[in-house]
Amino acid sequence: MIDVSKDHAIGIDIGGTNTKYGIVNHRGQIIFEGSMKTDIHENVADFIDALYNTLKPEIDKFKDINIVGIGVGAPNGNFYTGNIEYAPNLKWVGVVPLAKLISEKFGIPAKLTNDANAAAIGEMMYGAARGMKDFIMITLGTGVGSGIVANGELILGHDGFAGELGHTIVVPGGRKHTKTGALGSLEAYASATGVTITAKEYLTGTDEASVLRETPLEELDSKLVFDAAIAGDILSKRVFATTGDILGMALANFVMFSSPQAIILFGGLTKAGDILMKPIKESMERNLLPIFRDKVQLIFSELKESDSAILGASALVWDR
Amino acid sequence: MIDVSKDHAIGIDIGGTNTKYGIVNHRGQIIFEGSMKTDIHENVADFIDALYNTLKPEIDKFKDINIVGIGVGAPNGNFYTGNIEYAPNLKWVGVVPLAKLISEKFGIPAKLTNDANAAAIGEMMYGAARGMKDFIMITLGTGVGSGIVANGELILGHDGFAGELGHTIVVPGGRKHTKTGALGSLEAYASATGVTITAKEYLTGTDEASVLRETPLEELDSKLVFDAAIAGDILSKRVFATTGDILGMALANFVMFSSPQAIILFGGLTKAGDILMKPIKESMERNLLPIFRDKVQLIFSELKESDSAILGASALVWDR
Repeated sequence: MIDVSKDHAIGIDIGGTNTKYGIVNHRGQIIFEGSMKTDIHENVADFIDALYNTLKPEIDKFKDINIVGIGVGAPNGNFYTGNIEYAPNLKWVGVVPLAKLISEKFGIPAKLTNDANAAAIGEMMYGAARGMKDFIMITLGTGVGSGIVANGELILGHDGFAGELGHTIVVPGGRKHTKTGALGSLEAYASATGVTITAKEYLTGTDEASVLRETPLEELDSKLVFDAAIAGDILSKRVFATTGDILGMALANFVMFSSPQAIILFGGLTKAGDILMKPIKESMERNLLPIFRDKVQLIFSELKESDSAILGASALVWDR
Repeated sequence: MIDVSKDHAIGIDIGGTNTKYGIVNHRGQIIFEGSMKTDIHENVADFIDALYNTLKPEIDKFKDINIVGIGVGAPNGNFYTGNIEYAPNLKWVGVVPLAKLISEKFGIPAKLTNDANAAAIGEMMYGAARGMKDFIMITLGTGVGSGIVANGELILGHDGFAGELGHTIVVPGGRKHTKTGALGSLEAYASATGVTITAKEYLTGTDEASVLRETPLEELDSKLVFDAAIAGDILSKRVFATTGDILGMALANFVMFSSPQAIILFGGLTKAGDILMKPIKESMERNLLPIFRDKVQLIFSELKESDSAILGASALVWDR
């Protein structure tokens, strides 16, 4: 028998601004974690040098552990190729062979996937989706990301890019997505950015009273809209009702695709709690075929947001 | 070594009006086929008696074969439970334990799935999806059905009901689906029924000249609209352009879910050929994120429609 208690994985979560990393044991306990800047490194070689110089000394402090592998979650990270491909919010342009670069630098096998897929794996191994074989993870932050698990496996698609549910069209001919140019995609409505735009539309399109009018339009953000909604501001509550209505319809469509046991919501916007969850749930159930109604658990992630990205990435090492 | 050449499967496709059956060898060759009425049997026990009395003598004529199992495709057929559950177009109400009843009557193991899933398996084993691990099968007939394969496996979902893409909402608040009451679901537009409704809307909503006006509205069907479009009727061509536009957008959303290598279209409406395929393809590509563009094969099924249902059902016996 191999003594697995010595086996550990490194989880790295690369975001546009910050990169978080941790050393994780087989039970999902983070025995060390840290972070560094991503966007100060204009090219990826510099970034990997900096990562190595920061992380390697920390690894060496643990004498008794065996690092089995490195798992990385990153925007547009492709599990099949190990490449980050055309990530709009990273400075490294084009196709970056990230898994290969990290593996060579550290001398340890490395795996890569996109950040939302990593979160889904983390949720399946350590979070709200433990024991589930069919679920969908939706991350509601600045954008809308997704990771889909069916038959106990991540849906990666033929090219590794499956699970871009934030870019599905939910309102044909609707609001223009500033980055993609798409009209009416989910992310244009159900992200923190989308919530802010909806609030601005309501403020400029009507004369309705709102505490949000005390803030200059250009300083408005989803946190302010949420605070106002909690305080009872009618216009702000309607912003979340509309957001939940559109998101709930999109979730109904996802359910009719893969019939998951649960949809797990994750990310900054979920802090809105019931103000968002209630309209989502109502709209989802209303838009489902009867055969799917009252069957799908709609839940918030159980993982600490700061940990889940690292856990999810590290779980890539144990997965498959 | 087992001599697999003697092993055969029975494939049964239960439709609202007719039931087709066949004896199929391991290479997908149908060595015998026949059909019987479904809807003259008010209860399922009578139906199974009739099926047995028709099919058993035919099986017995083949002295040298070994029937390994029976595969059945049926509306709302559930692979996990073996039950047909609340199928709107069958006379047998509620939950019907079909796989169990057939298995007991014939003394042979029986498996059940829904008709679109059976078609997808047939396509994977004998048709256009041979060798593919990620594809989506869309059946365009009276309704819109779907079977989804990812990671080489059917997506069944936690309850066996995954893949109801015809019921996803594509036009929020749009056309009412007569059977489900849903507003703006794909099936309300992209089925033969939907094509007919669109034509009627164009005819009653405008004074535009059209050869369709020679036919009383209540006698109009998708075949007539197709014939008129082929003959150059502008209004009829626009009906297919609109249908393709909506279907293409829906397909783009499905691609961004599971990133399939191919989408295989199947069923009566595909006889429209390029008149339908061209707008579908244009709309799908336009609505996709750039990362997915020009990657997905959009193809018609290679299987003879009359055979594919039997082949797909029989393939259940070899699958898994």
